[in-house]
Amino acid sequence: MSRRLGAQTVELTNPVCVAAGAAVVGKKEGEGPLRERFDEIGTDAYFGQKSWEKAESVMLSRCFQKLCAKAKTPPEQIQYLLAGDLQSQCTASAFAVRDSAVPFLGLYGACSTMGEGMSLGAMLIDGGAAETVCAMTSSHFCAAEREFRLPLEYGGQRTPSAQWTATAAGAVLLRAGGGGARITHITTGKIVDAGVTDASNMGAAMAPAAWETLKAHFAETGRAPGDYDAVITGDLGHFGHDILADLAAAEGVVFPVAFTDCGMLIYNAEHQDVHAGGSGCGCCASVFAGHILKCMQEGLWRKVLFAPTGALMSLVTSQQGESIPGICHALALEWKEE
Amino acid sequence: MSRRLGAQTVELTNPVCVAAGAAVVGKKEGEGPLRERFDEIGTDAYFGQKSWEKAESVMLSRCFQKLCAKAKTPPEQIQYLLAGDLQSQCTASAFAVRDSAVPFLGLYGACSTMGEGMSLGAMLIDGGAAETVCAMTSSHFCAAEREFRLPLEYGGQRTPSAQWTATAAGAVLLRAGGGGARITHITTGKIVDAGVTDASNMGAAMAPAAWETLKAHFAETGRAPGDYDAVITGDLGHFGHDILADLAAAEGVVFPVAFTDCGMLIYNAEHQDVHAGGSGCGCCASVFAGHILKCMQEGLWRKVLFAPTGALMSLVTSQQGESIPGICHALALEWKEE
Repeated sequence: MSRRLGAQTVELTNPVCVAAGAAVVGKKEGEGPLRERFDEIGTDAYFGQKSWEKAESVMLSRCFQKLCAKAKTPPEQIQYLLAGDLQSQCTASAFAVRDSAVPFLGLYGACSTMGEGMSLGAMLIDGGAAETVCAMTSSHFCAAEREFRLPLEYGGQRTPSAQWTATAAGAVLLRAGGGGARITHITTGKIVDAGVTDASNMGAAMAPAAWETLKAHFAETGRAPGDYDAVITGDLGHFGHDILADLAAAEGVVFPVAFTDCGMLIYNAEHQDVHAGGSGCGCCASVFAGHILKCMQEGLWRKVLFAPTGALMSLVTSQQGESIPGICHALALEWKEE
Repeated sequence: MSRRLGAQTVELTNPVCVAAGAAVVGKKEGEGPLRERFDEIGTDAYFGQKSWEKAESVMLSRCFQKLCAKAKTPPEQIQYLLAGDLQSQCTASAFAVRDSAVPFLGLYGACSTMGEGMSLGAMLIDGGAAETVCAMTSSHFCAAEREFRLPLEYGGQRTPSAQWTATAAGAVLLRAGGGGARITHITTGKIVDAGVTDASNMGAAMAPAAWETLKAHFAETGRAPGDYDAVITGDLGHFGHDILADLAAAEGVVFPVAFTDCGMLIYNAEHQDVHAGGSGCGCCASVFAGHILKCMQEGLWRKVLFAPTGALMSLVTSQQGESIPGICHALALEWKEE
């Protein structure tokens, strides 16, 4: 049974572990600092398909297959598949697993979707509804540019605050019991709209939501930032991370630990021309499954706070002059020997 | 703790009741046979806004406010808000509640989203993660036509198999304990792709998924159609319902009870020019919250199987020649005196 600690946080009382992770990424992501951490790197943007949208589905489908293989768990042993992406009507996910025959629950939390899926999956396991759940998300740079901003063919200039949507897919298998990286607490975010209207500055739109969720997490668990070895948001990028640090500092909170963001980890800021860093559902999903989980397995980090962030906008809301609501869901993970 | 009965079905062991429901609909829906069942009927397609998309958000927001008022539950007592809609990136929902300060989990299951939200909400309550959860969805005819098919200004002819996306919002408040309409079993759907490519015949695309979920529900619970007073899908419409009945009959299964579909209930097929009936996330949500729940409260039905269906396609997948995957989530409800 999950135990409520406050308005936004539950503590899991049964062990829920991240039994395995898999990440498949695009060519550019495979040239970044985490290149050795991913399971497969595409040779181009197409993954053998004729459209970017289909390419994203195939990339996510391969990621799911790799996860099942790594976890030695065939799809029929998975009770829920929680997935989402940035394409309209979340079709990248639905098409990726339409032949899997796993009970499917589609999610939309923009770049926070991996946090949402892992949260729901962990609570379903803790509450006895499932023993084995897969959470996964994807994004594709070219599909996302067409979806949210301008056609790539237009060749628009990118502002310094713009983030680069990662072509990446990440998946984790959550399981009841066992040792390893266990999910212990879940803090679910409220929507926070700071009034930002610039779709090329999503870090600014999401940072206030990230700060509200982190604050709620620390207050409701009685923990401090220093209780973790790493606090990692995703995907605020460099601009958004700086804003988050400023918001925390203004309230006297410092992070005496590894304090970073998946959008800062996935690319080399100096050499990859990505401006403010990475974004997209697949960014934090692939960085978590490919890198953060491994850092825990390798003994580098024992306690991690993982906090994916999302910007809940669309091309239509931007065109209609709406501001960009942000959201952030946080999960506390702790390494436990079996 | 939820108890698993099979690959797709869990039985809830703690009482989870539908404490209240609210429905706000558009003008056309307010002229249909359920007009007396809804809480508010709009006077036009705009709900005082300048765009159809904003109108949908306002309609859903009002529905949420009405739900809180009817349930005598302020938003701060709601622990999770599970919501989704048909707009790209599910913005109707996010914008409807961006000021509510309720922890938010966005969903996408097309017209099955209300089934997904009620399923997840009930499992979160049963597992101890929450005591009070709101599930809600909406759709808007004009916004959906623009999103999925053709601009309304084009004035395209509709085929006989086309359904009319309901301008409607529905919301329910789920609560731990108490009497009334209790959710007892949840059967989560797998994606079923029957190869249908006609976006004007979604009933045909979804009917096979509905049948697979109903079959799994009966097999895993050991129940028969006749154990329910009503089996109600949503939103197959008239064409899809006929296909579902044929699929069942081909396997020798008959429904000796009220066997209907929310898309058949919301409009008058003879006088409202809606062709194959209603569809859209808001159709089954408003019919459930406005009508089915009341039928249980009024003592007409004691046991109901509610099975929302969704077509997991987008304009892009249609344009790229993809077939339309379907999905269906079923919930068993039973009336229990307090």
